[in-house]
Amino acid sequence: MEFNKSKLNTLKRGAKKASYNKELIHSILDATEICHIAFTHENKAFVQPINFGRKNNKLYLHGSYKNRMTQALLKEKEVCLNVTLLDAMKLTRSAFHHSVNYRSVTVFGSVKELTTEESKLEGLKCIINHFVPNRWEYCRIPDAGELKATRVLEIHITTASAKIADSPPGDNKADLDLDYWAGTIPVKTSYGYPVSDAFTAKDTEIPKHILDFYNNKKS
Amino acid sequence: MEFNKSKLNTLKRGAKKASYNKELIHSILDATEICHIAFTHENKAFVQPINFGRKNNKLYLHGSYKNRMTQALLKEKEVCLNVTLLDAMKLTRSAFHHSVNYRSVTVFGSVKELTTEESKLEGLKCIINHFVPNRWEYCRIPDAGELKATRVLEIHITTASAKIADSPPGDNKADLDLDYWAGTIPVKTSYGYPVSDAFTAKDTEIPKHILDFYNNKKS
Repeated sequence: MEFNKSKLNTLKRGAKKASYNKELIHSILDATEICHIAFTHENKAFVQPINFGRKNNKLYLHGSYKNRMTQALLKEKEVCLNVTLLDAMKLTRSAFHHSVNYRSVTVFGSVKELTTEESKLEGLKCIINHFVPNRWEYCRIPDAGELKATRVLEIHITTASAKIADSPPGDNKADLDLDYWAGTIPVKTSYGYPVSDAFTAKDTEIPKHILDFYNNKKS
Repeated sequence: MEFNKSKLNTLKRGAKKASYNKELIHSILDATEICHIAFTHENKAFVQPINFGRKNNKLYLHGSYKNRMTQALLKEKEVCLNVTLLDAMKLTRSAFHHSVNYRSVTVFGSVKELTTEESKLEGLKCIINHFVPNRWEYCRIPDAGELKATRVLEIHITTASAKIADSPPGDNKADLDLDYWAGTIPVKTSYGYPVSDAFTAKDTEIPKHILDFYNNKKS
């Protein structure tokens, strides 16, 4: 399945790196904890990082009711957000062609506030399980007071694009004989071994859902 | 030195995590390759990732002259951008208190286009040396044609804030006896050993400035 190409999501620069494939875009969103949200406040553009969850073609955000960003998104009723995963630094013989390999997704969506306890719980479950799969089963779910204090937003992804660079350094032919080093420095997000907190009994084993997460991310 | 606190940069949520220290903010900007830029286009807020350089209290960006984002920034004459480094995932006994340790900086700046060859070269040098220190000395600098094709923007940081979380998981006291695991999963950006490209002679040693970068990042 592909997202429709519109004026909003069609890449003009680096169009060869573009993809509109839904499954690919979802998988890049799932590979990271934090997205960057654009919003306007008093006619200025702002950007803010936030964690999120994804279920099917919807994303979930949460925040305080006083949060400027969630207020702005509800006013605009639409949002643009981006996630970018850096995969490599590419050093070329020419300064001009230095670049990076990356997987980047830009989402355009409509914003809706979830207001029932049931729908808010579903949104928060999605955020927690995006953080660590199955985590929702292994923690105390929000009580009525916590739910009341938390605004939960649902973003329906109306369209999106991925931009993916996964290629060797790209020098011009004329530069290949220059006596400068060119190559790649791989980059990835590494996850360390889970550490129990100070209130966990000393002989406690790290639970399976946490070890599963660690082992999946380690590779 | 501290950035002045204004309505624009003063943190309301999580004010205890805020810092306005210039050196700290500069060091967080220097620790990452990519920032996220907010801009408006046809009255909508957009966000886009881009690499950048920093020198003193100025940042440098570059792009094609046809790039929508650089055009928008020049129209607005000001910018908000963010960098966020994820340091740990914090899993608590309650869903509500799940969070992350991170270092995040939001910059508010004025935007100016660099138009002379000399100033454009200085801006690009800053971007390349932010990517890998001293790299500018070890590559072919842009020729007149490449310079002509590249727009270079200078951002004077008018104000900024850092938000830093570096604490253990924060469960409520009442939840500490619950039979759920709580702890931390460390996260960092890892850099692999540099790999020469296909056009580099087989016996070529990795140059010192590249090895220095790798060794500094490895720790």
